[in-house]
Amino acid sequence: MEFGWEQILGLVAGICTTIAVIPQIIKSWKTKKVKDVSPFMFTILLIGVFLWVVYGITQNDLPIIATNGVSLGLNSFMMYLMLKYRTKN
Amino acid sequence: MEFGWEQILGLVAGICTTIAVIPQIIKSWKTKKVKDVSPFMFTILLIGVFLWVVYGITQNDLPIIATNGVSLGLNSFMMYLMLKYRTKN
Repeated sequence: MEFGWEQILGLVAGICTTIAVIPQIIKSWKTKKVKDVSPFMFTILLIGVFLWVVYGITQNDLPIIATNGVSLGLNSFMMYLMLKYRTKN
Repeated sequence: MEFGWEQILGLVAGICTTIAVIPQIIKSWKTKKVKDVSPFMFTILLIGVFLWVVYGITQNDLPIIATNGVSLGLNSFMMYLMLKYRTKN
């Protein structure tokens, strides 16, 4: 695997899409409210990032493996907050 | 570019992470409430998927280009809903 500016671009892209959920985690953590957040979004997202990790392994593509691996962890934690703070409407 | 089961895996992964935002769009559209949703999440996400499209082009990687291109459109619409329904706290 070569490592040039294109891989750095992929990593920056991956870092953005990976850390994007962090402000949501902080907001939900602080407010303890997730009423307006869709649990289906995070369910589908979890399935998706898991499959991305598998795809990245088949392509030997480090940016995809690394960023989606972290994303899997972060989104799992967000899902935990969703379940913890969910309210009956 | 070859097109086998690995590319199909990448497409399914991409479809999941792309359509994940749709349940959130529907929820926000119906309830007209986005108070618990983080605007920073979608800001960082938009930057990220844009960079993924550029990365995909440099790698000639169809799953990355196609899925993140659609994702850019969907997340832009979600951002529009965020701005439309935002409330002063």
